[in-house]
Amino acid sequence: MTTGDPVLAIDIGGTKLAAALVDSGGLLRRRHEVPCQPSRRGEGEALWGTLVKLVEAVCADALPGGIGVGCGGPMRWPQGVVSPLNIAAWRDFPLRVRLREMFPGAHVRVANDAIALAVGEHWRGAGVGVRNLMGVVVSTGVGGGLVLDGRVEFGETGNAGHLGHVVVDPDGPECVCGGRGCLEAIARGPAVVQWALDHGWSTAGEPDGRTLVAAARAGEQIAIEAFARAGTALGTAVASAAHLLELDVVAIGGGLANAGDLLLGPARSAFACHARMEFASRCHIVRAGLDVDAGLIGAAALVVCGDQYWPSGAD
Amino acid sequence: MTTGDPVLAIDIGGTKLAAALVDSGGLLRRRHEVPCQPSRRGEGEALWGTLVKLVEAVCADALPGGIGVGCGGPMRWPQGVVSPLNIAAWRDFPLRVRLREMFPGAHVRVANDAIALAVGEHWRGAGVGVRNLMGVVVSTGVGGGLVLDGRVEFGETGNAGHLGHVVVDPDGPECVCGGRGCLEAIARGPAVVQWALDHGWSTAGEPDGRTLVAAARAGEQIAIEAFARAGTALGTAVASAAHLLELDVVAIGGGLANAGDLLLGPARSAFACHARMEFASRCHIVRAGLDVDAGLIGAAALVVCGDQYWPSGAD
Repeated sequence: MTTGDPVLAIDIGGTKLAAALVDSGGLLRRRHEVPCQPSRRGEGEALWGTLVKLVEAVCADALPGGIGVGCGGPMRWPQGVVSPLNIAAWRDFPLRVRLREMFPGAHVRVANDAIALAVGEHWRGAGVGVRNLMGVVVSTGVGGGLVLDGRVEFGETGNAGHLGHVVVDPDGPECVCGGRGCLEAIARGPAVVQWALDHGWSTAGEPDGRTLVAAARAGEQIAIEAFARAGTALGTAVASAAHLLELDVVAIGGGLANAGDLLLGPARSAFACHARMEFASRCHIVRAGLDVDAGLIGAAALVVCGDQYWPSGAD
Repeated sequence: MTTGDPVLAIDIGGTKLAAALVDSGGLLRRRHEVPCQPSRRGEGEALWGTLVKLVEAVCADALPGGIGVGCGGPMRWPQGVVSPLNIAAWRDFPLRVRLREMFPGAHVRVANDAIALAVGEHWRGAGVGVRNLMGVVVSTGVGGGLVLDGRVEFGETGNAGHLGHVVVDPDGPECVCGGRGCLEAIARGPAVVQWALDHGWSTAGEPDGRTLVAAARAGEQIAIEAFARAGTALGTAVASAAHLLELDVVAIGGGLANAGDLLLGPARSAFACHARMEFASRCHIVRAGLDVDAGLIGAAALVVCGDQYWPSGAD
């Protein structure tokens, strides 16, 4: 992109679809979001229709200078053919091709949503100037993305950094992926809420991550323990990743990061217990600096700062 | 290096010191090794003296065209100041400086021994032509090294790829590093032997990895179980790494790899159980193709193929 036209950024997760125009400085304009309703196989076109309406609402008459997308994984990259584990409606959905048809001639770049978060944090958030960063999304699922030596590590098919399926307890609960004891099986929002319900928590409202955070803040012990259990699993997985990759900073985002130190306190304790080698223990676990917009801002950066964050040859 | 002079390769681990001259095709000449006796702090000069004698025996009157070293971690890299967890005599030992004093003007390149193994396997072993490879040393300790997208991932201080301290059981045994449940705490040779002894194994010979392999091959159940337990931990850790890095091949070397499928069979089973996402499950766990010489050959490649395997600016 050579013009200063704003970029259309899209963030697609199991809980919500969000989109905004983002300028070359990373500022958002006309941000809209809609819930991502639980869906079934075969409902892919309905979800696409929802996304089209959202995009039209954001763009109105503006023609974006490019489109950057963060989408739940896994996917085939750089083709942008997505099969988000937590969005059953899309299996091998050709997201990049569809968006290209909608915006002929524009750059369309689709990355894993956690990679987008990592890029956003590196560009404008908690990881500015950091050499080795992992971004983590703790939401309906748990994902991760890597910026190593200042460049995005996409992996062969765009799924590198996927912290959610690092094993934290080999005899732990079954995971949506078919494995056992993955971080995601313990720390994903619905699993944290279910654990609390199973251990006696009840609420007058909807039993979700938001009400569980409120309960924990109000001092309800089971809610506090539910976040501590998730945070401990998170810190353990981060310790493993820090040993493998000499990470400087791990930025935690996604809806569950709203729990703040209820989640990050136990994560830091578990990390300190398991990361003892100096090259790993020096890593800092912080909350994503861009809050819920990290994914959108990172998706925009895939286009705005493509020289740094998008490999030549992946267009 | 522009000449065709053979390179001096050195492999330093908790069990043995090995050295050889290696030609530009990766062939070894004049390979010598000596045991690395258990040592204590303060005995660093004695160990250095042993290494000097070994190097003199290998070089005789030849002047090597450069020196490549794989050494147990952790270390400060690229300075080559080493503190191998399993060699107590060396803490902050200036290995690179010492070798430079011994061979003025020559390139001296020191890397983690598991990184050297990974490079050797990528250059001439089980990983030729592979894009994303992890090499693993299972010996007195457990280490790992990464070749990602064809280039070595050293990390900020040369310790990236350190699979040994990936957590495989958060409530597992204490590790030498001070943590708990690390792969190394379960799968390092001495731990495997100790587990067998604790569970009733006995031998007329020296109770070490070699005799334990022989016992397992002879059908002794406890010996078989000891390797199965280590292999299961190994496969679990590899699953975590494959999710983080979309690995194509993981090559297992080091003394305990001599157990062959006694170790790798259970490793593959555990990997299949935990690596369910397609981008991870496609990874192959194989035995290092260069056997015990992978580290030496990889150490040589740091010099012979420095353009690919050694970052410019790290000399």
